[in-house]
Amino acid sequence: MFADTAEFHVWYAERVRAQKYQTSKVPLDELDGWITDPATGNLRHHTGKFFTVEGLDVTRSGRAVEAWQQPIIIQPERGVLGILVKEFDGVPHCLLQVKFEPGNVNGLQLSPTVQATRSNLTGVHGGRSVPYLEYFSSPRPGRTLSDVLQSEQASWFLAKRNRNMIVQVDDDVPVLDDFCWLSFDQISDLLREPNLVNMDTRTVLAGAVARRLDEYAFATVDDFRGALARSWADDGDQLHTTVELLSWFTEAKGRCTLTRELIPLSTVTGWSRRDGALSHHREQHFSVIGVDVQTDNREVSNWQQPMFEPRSQGVIAFLVRRVHGVLHLLVQARFETGAFDGVEMAPTVQCQPDNYRHLPASSAPLFLADVLDAAPERIRFDVVHSEEGGRFYHAQNRYLLIEVGDDFPLAVPDNYAWMTLRQLTEFVRYGNHLNVEARILLTFFGFYREETS
Amino acid sequence: MFADTAEFHVWYAERVRAQKYQTSKVPLDELDGWITDPATGNLRHHTGKFFTVEGLDVTRSGRAVEAWQQPIIIQPERGVLGILVKEFDGVPHCLLQVKFEPGNVNGLQLSPTVQATRSNLTGVHGGRSVPYLEYFSSPRPGRTLSDVLQSEQASWFLAKRNRNMIVQVDDDVPVLDDFCWLSFDQISDLLREPNLVNMDTRTVLAGAVARRLDEYAFATVDDFRGALARSWADDGDQLHTTVELLSWFTEAKGRCTLTRELIPLSTVTGWSRRDGALSHHREQHFSVIGVDVQTDNREVSNWQQPMFEPRSQGVIAFLVRRVHGVLHLLVQARFETGAFDGVEMAPTVQCQPDNYRHLPASSAPLFLADVLDAAPERIRFDVVHSEEGGRFYHAQNRYLLIEVGDDFPLAVPDNYAWMTLRQLTEFVRYGNHLNVEARILLTFFGFYREETS
Repeated sequence: MFADTAEFHVWYAERVRAQKYQTSKVPLDELDGWITDPATGNLRHHTGKFFTVEGLDVTRSGRAVEAWQQPIIIQPERGVLGILVKEFDGVPHCLLQVKFEPGNVNGLQLSPTVQATRSNLTGVHGGRSVPYLEYFSSPRPGRTLSDVLQSEQASWFLAKRNRNMIVQVDDDVPVLDDFCWLSFDQISDLLREPNLVNMDTRTVLAGAVARRLDEYAFATVDDFRGALARSWADDGDQLHTTVELLSWFTEAKGRCTLTRELIPLSTVTGWSRRDGALSHHREQHFSVIGVDVQTDNREVSNWQQPMFEPRSQGVIAFLVRRVHGVLHLLVQARFETGAFDGVEMAPTVQCQPDNYRHLPASSAPLFLADVLDAAPERIRFDVVHSEEGGRFYHAQNRYLLIEVGDDFPLAVPDNYAWMTLRQLTEFVRYGNHLNVEARILLTFFGFYREETS
Repeated sequence: MFADTAEFHVWYAERVRAQKYQTSKVPLDELDGWITDPATGNLRHHTGKFFTVEGLDVTRSGRAVEAWQQPIIIQPERGVLGILVKEFDGVPHCLLQVKFEPGNVNGLQLSPTVQATRSNLTGVHGGRSVPYLEYFSSPRPGRTLSDVLQSEQASWFLAKRNRNMIVQVDDDVPVLDDFCWLSFDQISDLLREPNLVNMDTRTVLAGAVARRLDEYAFATVDDFRGALARSWADDGDQLHTTVELLSWFTEAKGRCTLTRELIPLSTVTGWSRRDGALSHHREQHFSVIGVDVQTDNREVSNWQQPMFEPRSQGVIAFLVRRVHGVLHLLVQARFETGAFDGVEMAPTVQCQPDNYRHLPASSAPLFLADVLDAAPERIRFDVVHSEEGGRFYHAQNRYLLIEVGDDFPLAVPDNYAWMTLRQLTEFVRYGNHLNVEARILLTFFGFYREETS
């Protein structure tokens, strides 16, 4: 346990020094253990395990660009992302792990207690077993706080889902090297630091938001915190009923005309292999690269694999507005390239702005300017975080919460709706509703703290 | 409006007399407008519209039979099933329609206000427009009571879903021929008559159960009605929390190993074409047959199409038990052959018992004997209803609600869980949770009435 985050940082720096790791780029066609299928150009592991990179043909997307082709990761196996919670002196703490992932900007980030692919579970890696997994298998001790199959980045994965779990125990839990207990408040602070709390931790914590907001007793205060607390209060003071929002979501699914079809990776238009990577011809979106990984602290100590490397930083933001003093979030029903059910609830803005530079200004994503041009006093949260370092190389997104003023119109286009935190927190309990970007922003609301000076 | 159901029946008999319709069987290879693909044996319409019949290979089902092949209906288009509700003197009424479907046992059944395939919406039939559709399009007048994409029979459809909607209006609504207003109480009575209220009406009405149970003020009575009312009361008196049940559901998805692959219909093992139909070699399950349809009251007056004809009657039942006076339903997390997400919440028992006659008695579906051998005084509901008459020919299932005694064990196998009506009514608001059979039984709970003598 740490008295404060400064103490955590001393420990963290020491863990960083203790671990040896190195990631270096390798040309795709020299990747050890990986095969470029001669017929399709698809990338696959020689065992047939882990994941493949294939081609996807997308049409009728309903976006500024109606149709395109792209590489996509196919990983049908579902893993477990689990966080163990335990109260010490009545204060809930999470057991997190300082873990190396090859794509992490800074090598080591704070991961969930357990971050296991099915390959981990079944021993395909031939490596060590995953500690603490028994708390997330059935039957298990403790009380389940959340447990739901959630989607991951639909721009890069086809129908990928992982089980997100939070389990609370009362028993003594041995703390292994590289693991530590952090209180909810300490995690709130650490979420304000760039590239430290990894994506898996951020998405799993969305399942703790309800519990966290229950402690949030500022409902009488006439400021952002108060509006946030009232957005959780169950007093019917919302713009739309839950039935209306579910109907809006069903309606959006009805409008979705997205079609997608797997195609051979070698036939994907607009992409080509050069300099050992598979890249977009305008150097936009992402490249598929190869990496060599050396580490002394994972199940296996050396391996090579393909990764997706974004070519620019993304922007992921909710616009929020007080309506009769109650905070409402502007949620988008987004046609998601790779989402299992085609449409998910997404942040107001979710894009790589650089992808639009060749398009007319009128094609810019809706509300992007409201985010990027927001006055500093309207920015409630603004931190750069990494996406999952096991598949994505230095993938960074700027996450923002922007509070717009009363002059911001409540009337919004069909694919958008204003919701309260309580409503989103209800929807996140069900899979296929909030996408990973929306879930992560929801976590930032649940773990919201003012900047401390 | 009818003073009572006797008055309804006079009107209904008259509507039956007024409509002319005839369905007769036609050999599959003589079906007008339908093509047996020479390469695959798949059945498809010459326009490429409506639906196709293809082959499905199923493995690792986790059932008594682990692997099999079967014909399956592919109908990717989503239709709208909508019921219009309006209060007359404070009493809610549904606008239902006496409608012919070729597969109906008795020709005409009570359909929702709107029962429109996407082909209807876009005019593929070249027929008349669908009345009342404007109440279910956007923007629309009135208040949406429920609106969700729901699955249909997963044994016969692959990933088929329809939009289930209930919309309440205050305006005057013109009542066309063959349409009538029926009160919730009258519908309760009619649901106790065999083969009258069609499947689409029964599934849509699951969205009205919450509203119906709100009126159900018998919570203090120590009988089945009282236990049912307490199963709706939101007082935390349930065996499992909602989070625990969602975790149980996620866990079941994790256990599901079901794989399914479309294959050419001509290669399906165990099935062959004889006497103009495609039948199972043991005369079990169902046959794919062709029918010729004549009617004077549909968008088009004559057509031919393939249909699925079950070879035996099915049994669909919930076992329910009072726990501390609160009714609990024994729900099954069922690996569903054709379900979009593989696993859905299903009734305790859902099968065609005849399909098991060649298997050892130990392979009989769990709890089937508890249903079939139930003492008469334990049977709360027992009615034979038809499945959707547009695709299924004389498909009848016996729907039962059986109340077991306090000696029935609360400990149940992993794939089963006890839930309250409130919990199921919450889950039914989200798609991909309750299968069509469970939703229909839920409707019977919501519209429960004692037998009147």
